[in-house]
Amino acid sequence: MLSVTCKAPVNIAIIKYWGKRHEELILPINDSISMTLGTNELCAKTTITASEKFQHNRMWLNDEELLFEEDSRLMRCLKGVQRLAHINGSQEASLSWKVHIASRNNFPTAAGLASSAAGYACLVYSLARLYGIPLTEELTTIARQGSGSACRSLFGGFVQWHRGVLDDGSDSVAEPVASAQHWPNMHVLILVVNDERKKTSSTKGMQRSVTTSQLIQHRVDKLVPERIANLKKAIKARDFQSFAEITMKDSNQFHAIALDTYPPCVYMNDVSHAIVNFVHTYNKTTGTVHAAYTFDAGPNACIYVLKENVAKLLAEIQKVFPHDSIDTVEYLRGLAVSPESNIEQNSDGATDNSIHTTAEHRKVNGMLNVQPKNLLKYIIHTKVGDGPCQLSDDNSLLINGLPLSH
Amino acid sequence: MLSVTCKAPVNIAIIKYWGKRHEELILPINDSISMTLGTNELCAKTTITASEKFQHNRMWLNDEELLFEEDSRLMRCLKGVQRLAHINGSQEASLSWKVHIASRNNFPTAAGLASSAAGYACLVYSLARLYGIPLTEELTTIARQGSGSACRSLFGGFVQWHRGVLDDGSDSVAEPVASAQHWPNMHVLILVVNDERKKTSSTKGMQRSVTTSQLIQHRVDKLVPERIANLKKAIKARDFQSFAEITMKDSNQFHAIALDTYPPCVYMNDVSHAIVNFVHTYNKTTGTVHAAYTFDAGPNACIYVLKENVAKLLAEIQKVFPHDSIDTVEYLRGLAVSPESNIEQNSDGATDNSIHTTAEHRKVNGMLNVQPKNLLKYIIHTKVGDGPCQLSDDNSLLINGLPLSH
Repeated sequence: MLSVTCKAPVNIAIIKYWGKRHEELILPINDSISMTLGTNELCAKTTITASEKFQHNRMWLNDEELLFEEDSRLMRCLKGVQRLAHINGSQEASLSWKVHIASRNNFPTAAGLASSAAGYACLVYSLARLYGIPLTEELTTIARQGSGSACRSLFGGFVQWHRGVLDDGSDSVAEPVASAQHWPNMHVLILVVNDERKKTSSTKGMQRSVTTSQLIQHRVDKLVPERIANLKKAIKARDFQSFAEITMKDSNQFHAIALDTYPPCVYMNDVSHAIVNFVHTYNKTTGTVHAAYTFDAGPNACIYVLKENVAKLLAEIQKVFPHDSIDTVEYLRGLAVSPESNIEQNSDGATDNSIHTTAEHRKVNGMLNVQPKNLLKYIIHTKVGDGPCQLSDDNSLLINGLPLSH
Repeated sequence: MLSVTCKAPVNIAIIKYWGKRHEELILPINDSISMTLGTNELCAKTTITASEKFQHNRMWLNDEELLFEEDSRLMRCLKGVQRLAHINGSQEASLSWKVHIASRNNFPTAAGLASSAAGYACLVYSLARLYGIPLTEELTTIARQGSGSACRSLFGGFVQWHRGVLDDGSDSVAEPVASAQHWPNMHVLILVVNDERKKTSSTKGMQRSVTTSQLIQHRVDKLVPERIANLKKAIKARDFQSFAEITMKDSNQFHAIALDTYPPCVYMNDVSHAIVNFVHTYNKTTGTVHAAYTFDAGPNACIYVLKENVAKLLAEIQKVFPHDSIDTVEYLRGLAVSPESNIEQNSDGATDNSIHTTAEHRKVNGMLNVQPKNLLKYIIHTKVGDGPCQLSDDNSLLINGLPLSH
């Protein structure tokens, strides 16, 4: 019997993945770039135990057992890593042993944050550890076949997922653009928005966009390649202004394509758009770009902001989006906010209190209107993070091959 | 002293006008097609009196006096028609006499319906009647310089506004595609939606789209010409299915372009999107396309529906969007709904009660969810209508050159 436990991060797309050129192999119609988030705040954790005594491959996700052997995506990942292990001549765990797998997210699924990327990345990474094979580009093609964006969660920092051109998808790999240490003060505030509406799944939504949007091909052919190049330049130069502008424009364009779909896919709601408005107004009042929003296939906002600007931005968010539980740990989750970052030096050396300047600008703009209470569910403060890693055995989610709770 | 009183209709774009190639001459970057609405429900009414005794050109809009001679758009229309009259050798009213103008809409401006198209069309048409000159393509270029879409309100039925290619705009004219009598059972339900948000004006919004959207040029160059051709075909063939699909797709694409603008322009809200959802679900349950939405630069929906399907559609709207005043004349305005259109013949000759079939489909789809109360302000029922016309003198809004209320 052999057992490994690993954790893997969530990633947030900056240049969006929307549309497949091959459904089963999960090959995208355009390159995408994401940022990997810190695992302390958001991660998937997976334990895999292999034993010659196990009768079947079994898996528990958040304590509920799945029909593992009937799930083609899960089986594809298992078989894929086993095939790689076989080629590598791995001896760590016998490839004929059945596996028991337990996986959990450290964040509520109700958050509406895509958990499948972290989950499949963690599964594939844990299998690779189990069989003792290294993290390679080829491994990312296996994670990709579990959930497209999972391939990007195999690396930390900023990651590019290449569209590739080959029919078998072997060149549709994820590749690091820059490590988390390259831009360590890149922080993120996730504003989790209340939403009751039933929405189109992203798998179905992107299928429909590819079939019906008359704008998507132009985006893919003419616009994304330039944006990818410009974003990589901005990341490498740690140029927040350019990074922010590309991020916001690509988020908007992705939702524009979703709206140009027939019938249209609508993922942002009135609160999402109020956040967009807030960010543009906030940037205007600060006189520079301090915050950049991006929205995935749901209403929640991810706001990129440099560490030194977090406290100031957060103070404004709390004012514009008031909440009954504003000071509780349930409402404001994740990294602590260092109060000293609230005070910045002006060019003349005087300290600048954000409250005074923004109050002044508010009068000028008349736009930073206070919203009704409790539009946000909660806020998560996190930052750029590293890729997956193996944990010590005392983190195991399985005891003798069965979940802790059993 | 000479006086004329005219009324002019509102028009609703089906292929949207969004973006100018010349700001002052109001030349669009693409062709558009609209449908003119009946003046009984929605119209502008204008009286113009010319007299050698008047000292200044003056105008009252909805009883408030404007600074007429300082308003470049109004003066451009006056001078434009006078120039035409001079060329035509018109003798009806002296071109040197000053004019007094009163104009009113028969619908509340709070409705958020574009009133400027009807208003400028009525002004230019009334001036043409005053000076005794005919309604020509050239006259539409004058209305266009008041408010772009006003040129389309000079004709009834379905109207195309040509982009034109000339720098002076003389070929950017409106032209009838088909009269109101060609498709007399084309009806419209306008769902007026409550909305408190401050939105970007369409003039500013379209400027920003032209400057910043990376998708708009592709729409203009590659997509609109084909849509224009297909829509004209559908109108000429009275093919409601094709008409409806093009209408909905172009509405969505216009809002997609607005969203791809930077910063984005958002005109639809959650209620608008609930209406979109409702229409698609409703069409699915009826098994054919009976309703088509379109949204201008605001949250209100215009729903195209053939006369024979109005009662059935309206009954479903009332169920899905309940309202406290659902049966009052304040809530349901405009044309009466003939109850007999609620019953249609099945292919086997049996009568079909919509309530039973949709209830069944509702279970299947689970999507026609009842919305919270009072999301709509009110509903206007109208239909395709004729162009402007002159009214008898007892409709005059001026007495001795001054508004009735003075």
